[in-house]
Amino acid sequence: MSDDLAARFRELWDEIAPVGRDADSGGYLRYALTAPEIELRGWFRAQAERRAMPVTEDGNGNLFAHWGDPEGEDAVLTGSHFDSVPHGGAYDGPLGIVSAFLAVDELRAAGVTPDRPLVLAAFVEEEGARFGVPCLGSRLLTGALPPERATGLRDAAGVSFAEALGDKPAGARPELLGRFGAFVELHVEQGRALVDTDAPVAVASAIWPHGRWRFDVDGEGNHAGTTRMADRRDPMLTYAFTVLAANKEARLRGAHATVGRVSVEPNATNAIPSRVTGWLDARAADPQTLAGLVEAVRGKLAERARRDGTAVTVTEESATPLVAFDGGLAQRLAALLDAPVLPTGAGHDAGVLAGHLPTAMLFVRNPTGVSHSPAEAATDDDCAAGVRALAQVLKELTCR
Amino acid sequence: MSDDLAARFRELWDEIAPVGRDADSGGYLRYALTAPEIELRGWFRAQAERRAMPVTEDGNGNLFAHWGDPEGEDAVLTGSHFDSVPHGGAYDGPLGIVSAFLAVDELRAAGVTPDRPLVLAAFVEEEGARFGVPCLGSRLLTGALPPERATGLRDAAGVSFAEALGDKPAGARPELLGRFGAFVELHVEQGRALVDTDAPVAVASAIWPHGRWRFDVDGEGNHAGTTRMADRRDPMLTYAFTVLAANKEARLRGAHATVGRVSVEPNATNAIPSRVTGWLDARAADPQTLAGLVEAVRGKLAERARRDGTAVTVTEESATPLVAFDGGLAQRLAALLDAPVLPTGAGHDAGVLAGHLPTAMLFVRNPTGVSHSPAEAATDDDCAAGVRALAQVLKELTCR
Repeated sequence: MSDDLAARFRELWDEIAPVGRDADSGGYLRYALTAPEIELRGWFRAQAERRAMPVTEDGNGNLFAHWGDPEGEDAVLTGSHFDSVPHGGAYDGPLGIVSAFLAVDELRAAGVTPDRPLVLAAFVEEEGARFGVPCLGSRLLTGALPPERATGLRDAAGVSFAEALGDKPAGARPELLGRFGAFVELHVEQGRALVDTDAPVAVASAIWPHGRWRFDVDGEGNHAGTTRMADRRDPMLTYAFTVLAANKEARLRGAHATVGRVSVEPNATNAIPSRVTGWLDARAADPQTLAGLVEAVRGKLAERARRDGTAVTVTEESATPLVAFDGGLAQRLAALLDAPVLPTGAGHDAGVLAGHLPTAMLFVRNPTGVSHSPAEAATDDDCAAGVRALAQVLKELTCR
Repeated sequence: MSDDLAARFRELWDEIAPVGRDADSGGYLRYALTAPEIELRGWFRAQAERRAMPVTEDGNGNLFAHWGDPEGEDAVLTGSHFDSVPHGGAYDGPLGIVSAFLAVDELRAAGVTPDRPLVLAAFVEEEGARFGVPCLGSRLLTGALPPERATGLRDAAGVSFAEALGDKPAGARPELLGRFGAFVELHVEQGRALVDTDAPVAVASAIWPHGRWRFDVDGEGNHAGTTRMADRRDPMLTYAFTVLAANKEARLRGAHATVGRVSVEPNATNAIPSRVTGWLDARAADPQTLAGLVEAVRGKLAERARRDGTAVTVTEESATPLVAFDGGLAQRLAALLDAPVLPTGAGHDAGVLAGHLPTAMLFVRNPTGVSHSPAEAATDDDCAAGVRALAQVLKELTCR
């Protein structure tokens, strides 16, 4: 039976595998509301139609496919997102949607009739790779982000979110959100916690608090050949020092800090930059540690800027507090599945929804431990185990 | 009289001032063979025509305007380039061309009739900002770069140099080069050497040896939130360490080192990069110091890469040896103009031509000392002094 479900997983998976795949990197360019992601949204509608599940939209770009009355109360929601980071992996997001459709098939094949409506979701712009705000769709739906702020977010080409969506976003939908009684998001594991265990699936306990801080370093653009070292005000030095300081401060605290994005003006080989902008991604197990880490990096940055003669401004672009998933639900699912319980450093739409309804996450083992990269992986057998686990959970939650 | 020439300078200067100027930065985007630079090439032809100077091309993108027989021997060549670095200053390049036309006007107004042909040049792609190889036009003309290598150089959009030129470049033109008996390039000063002196104009002694080294650092792309610090192979750390090491090693040696350009894959806030590429621009007064600097940076880079678990390849993209300008000519012009003699860290077409014919450079004072930036400057009075100096030099060289 295992092989059969793994084969059905592979068959459905192969339908979307080519969409938005970059032939050179092997990674995916599935930015929200661009052609590949729009193609996947069409695929979502087709899958729902094939299963006689009507599809609704929430006016924010999020899609919902309904098994049962779309207006029914106390629905169980499951799903994830299609969009990717630049050259991201195949599983981050889409695995949760594909698994949800297959879980419906499993339940139907087993003759299960849910007592509560079951709703499958595809959230928009989870990664924030196009418009800069992660979990944009779920933040709009829950009211965590005012629609007027989302309207004006622009991608690198200057296209606004409202233009990409085709309309101004609707914003908070409390009456829709109020019909959901629970949310379960299945996701590929993004670390190595399951690699050396016998468990193909885990249940999430919490999401570390995390945020993004942009630091703009202004110096003096000048000629690289003719400007004496002593006369320079080179923002690249301040940037480089900050990258190393963030790494060191995170290690000292058992936290995570990354500077994976940089923008340089004019970015020419023979010019001292006039401005270098870096983005610090910082995460820690608790808010105190995170605050201490960010303060330490800010301090090092300011100190080095004085030495380099540069000027620095730091902007908090997003900050997400600690999300503790519903402890009772996590324990119940862990017992049901005989699965370990793990925290994660990654943000998810589940983290946004957890503030509004009982929420849980399932993680599927990733043999490389790598994510946000083409090297991200999951075996078909583990994905099948994920589908079975999700079907068990949905049966447990929808059948009274 | 001073004011009059300064006013005539300003009048001619204002004709080209708006071309390719970015309204936001105030800098110029005049990449070789793009619309703004093509417009300036048209302006060159119009200026030549207004002065009854026939224009020829060398099949490499370089333009020549002739006062006297275009086939005449022992010609005196003067001129510079129109192209800019990204958001570069107004003077770097165009000042030498505008000054050359005004020097012709000065000589004619004074009734001078040259005994040797006088040729004004506009060289193509001096900055290397579009196709990556600085002094591309003069390197082709002199044979320093084989035309088949230039043919395939591509800009960021994938357009080849041959496509931009409209034909494969002709390459070395020894019969044309052989007709030039001397070259004088007037250029804005790119440092602060003249700022605190009474001299508006200086004569160049030498160009420091310099080069560009690209370093590609490969690590492992991964999720910024979920990857333990100990499991990372983050190429940004290796890059940042190298930036600081280059700065330190240059200061220790009295040399110049700059990392002003970087490229990151995937360049996302929440992803550890898979690859970071940096470009080292290094210059020193002598080749031994330069070689020592580059070796020291290579060593630090390799050492840090071992620590970070990254892999590094270093590619020498260009290397220009020490150029000592014709010492006799420099002394003669310095005496003629009563001007100081200075070395420079910047590469120029004059540096390429100096290997083939007696070559000199004149520098016009820059009150900010800043170049390759919108802050680059020169007063109209100093520019007029530059025109007068160039006219004196051309008279000295062309009249036997």
